[in-house]
Amino acid sequence: MSSFANERISKISPYVPGEQPKDKKYIKLNTNESPFPPSQSAIEKIKMESERLMLYPDPDASELVLKIADYYGVDKNCIILSNGSDEVLNFAFAAFCDESTPAIFPDITYGFYKVFADINGVPCKEIPLRDDFTISIEDYTDENGVLFIANPNAPTGILLPLEMIEKLLMQNQNRLCVIDEAYIDFGGESCVPLIEKYDNLLVTQTFSKSRSMAGARLGVGFASPKIISDLVKVKYSTNPYNINRMTIVAGIGSMEDDDYFKSNCRKIIEARAFTESSLAEMGFSFTSSYTNFVFCKTPIINGKELYSRLKDKGILVRHFDKARISDYIRVTVGSLEEMKIFINTVKTILEELQ
Amino acid sequence: MSSFANERISKISPYVPGEQPKDKKYIKLNTNESPFPPSQSAIEKIKMESERLMLYPDPDASELVLKIADYYGVDKNCIILSNGSDEVLNFAFAAFCDESTPAIFPDITYGFYKVFADINGVPCKEIPLRDDFTISIEDYTDENGVLFIANPNAPTGILLPLEMIEKLLMQNQNRLCVIDEAYIDFGGESCVPLIEKYDNLLVTQTFSKSRSMAGARLGVGFASPKIISDLVKVKYSTNPYNINRMTIVAGIGSMEDDDYFKSNCRKIIEARAFTESSLAEMGFSFTSSYTNFVFCKTPIINGKELYSRLKDKGILVRHFDKARISDYIRVTVGSLEEMKIFINTVKTILEELQ
Repeated sequence: MSSFANERISKISPYVPGEQPKDKKYIKLNTNESPFPPSQSAIEKIKMESERLMLYPDPDASELVLKIADYYGVDKNCIILSNGSDEVLNFAFAAFCDESTPAIFPDITYGFYKVFADINGVPCKEIPLRDDFTISIEDYTDENGVLFIANPNAPTGILLPLEMIEKLLMQNQNRLCVIDEAYIDFGGESCVPLIEKYDNLLVTQTFSKSRSMAGARLGVGFASPKIISDLVKVKYSTNPYNINRMTIVAGIGSMEDDDYFKSNCRKIIEARAFTESSLAEMGFSFTSSYTNFVFCKTPIINGKELYSRLKDKGILVRHFDKARISDYIRVTVGSLEEMKIFINTVKTILEELQ
Repeated sequence: MSSFANERISKISPYVPGEQPKDKKYIKLNTNESPFPPSQSAIEKIKMESERLMLYPDPDASELVLKIADYYGVDKNCIILSNGSDEVLNFAFAAFCDESTPAIFPDITYGFYKVFADINGVPCKEIPLRDDFTISIEDYTDENGVLFIANPNAPTGILLPLEMIEKLLMQNQNRLCVIDEAYIDFGGESCVPLIEKYDNLLVTQTFSKSRSMAGARLGVGFASPKIISDLVKVKYSTNPYNINRMTIVAGIGSMEDDDYFKSNCRKIIEARAFTESSLAEMGFSFTSSYTNFVFCKTPIINGKELYSRLKDKGILVRHFDKARISDYIRVTVGSLEEMKIFINTVKTILEELQ
């Protein structure tokens, strides 16, 4: 730390992304990436666009916004794009929270919410999940603050059904509810259509997981035009050209190739089912996942140790050294082939322990 | 504005980027873009990388950092990369300014500094330039605050020589000096080597102008490892994957193609000389530019009117409706061919006025 750092920066603990070791080749099941390449349509558009990089991107990315608006059946003024969905989440903390408007989220959820709150100088209130890691929406009743709900939740993978989200919106009409749908495409039902009915709803999504574009950085926010205009103000006050030209055209290519997108989501759901049934056979328990990861534990070996032994054998998964969930590992659902290797490796580890 | 917007957002006036009209084809001399495509080496690397977008980028962009460190002869821990240099500038406001540490900058400079201050809840102090638009470093003496000096300055194009920057650093040892070198490659001498000697220096640069990558979004900060670590904290607390995979490899390609980079800078300097001498022949006056733009005025027609007539004739330049500089237009230096068209168009406009 330098002597020039202000008080807020001095105190902050930044987010720690999943490890990206460079020492050897791993089967990467630790950062919820897709095992499939982006759409060929996206790749072709990027190749053409690369010749035009001397020009600034369209700061409004209008063509891509129209594609997304058309796909989801919402007005173009109900959409903001961002450099990954982390960015639009950070915009929401900057625009809607303040010292007297805390951020409210479950005790077990996406770890970045706490960091966003800290960097924005915003207090947080963590609401414990039930013992089975489900959200009790009765714990979120009308008072001050902005709600941040990952749905499905991370790292549990558990989905709050659409009717529960609607109930949450109804019982919190005076405060904003941010629903982070990073993993919604793997079996959940999106609440984007509810933005027309509820002025207190902001939905965020990402192209990183289901659209195989983690490396391109594209996130989306859906809300009433007024909420979007507040977020656009933050964007134009920090980085108007936040999305580069290549990512804009890649997003357009992805939206135009719906069959590929849907087929990939189906493949992940199938590989998840295989993984879950194989883990069950070995005595693992796991939460009911609607995401591209499985959150599981075994009575035979603790989460940290299992993570470590898997890493030794060339498979990276994620372990969170955190109360209530330290027994678990979070395993990204890759291709069926990768999941077979994962299952066989777990088998070997359990056998070695006998 | 929504009813959920906090006080800071309610009051803010965002930055307004140069217009990007879609109604017809213009000769774009309004946003200081390069007329040349990015390096072929960058383009080839992007094409290969586009197949790997399902994976997150290296959040540290280590390979590109090493290339830049090697090129500038600095340690890799003295570098942070950002999504355009606007982002690293915003990080600096977030990390080093606060309510009692104002941002200090000239009254005529890059318009975004004021906006960065506002969004970060930071007071500003604007120091008037001299009548000839030069910076008097005697006006920046040791007191509280962080200095933001664009060098060369925008939109004047005027360069503060390296020895004056060093004097500024010496007389401000207790406060941070941020030197924004967005335009340094067009004839100025960079103060990056001074980071080894001065702990109170942060230098920012961009790949947008001289490296033809405005559409890819890549900025760089150079400073002591301690200052860099503060900025890295902001990055990891807002958007760790701020630079996408394609931009990382494009940056590497650009760094590897130094001849092309230098040749393009020379061409811009030549086209600038042509533009200046042609404007002088027509009775224009202009500041001494060390950038890829010319800041000029004529006694015959005011800046707003000239901007407007040029736009009618298919040429976009930038006019700032601001005290002291409203007589001027800022003209990006494009290709020699574009500048010949610009000069001929100005001639026609002046003839029409006679």
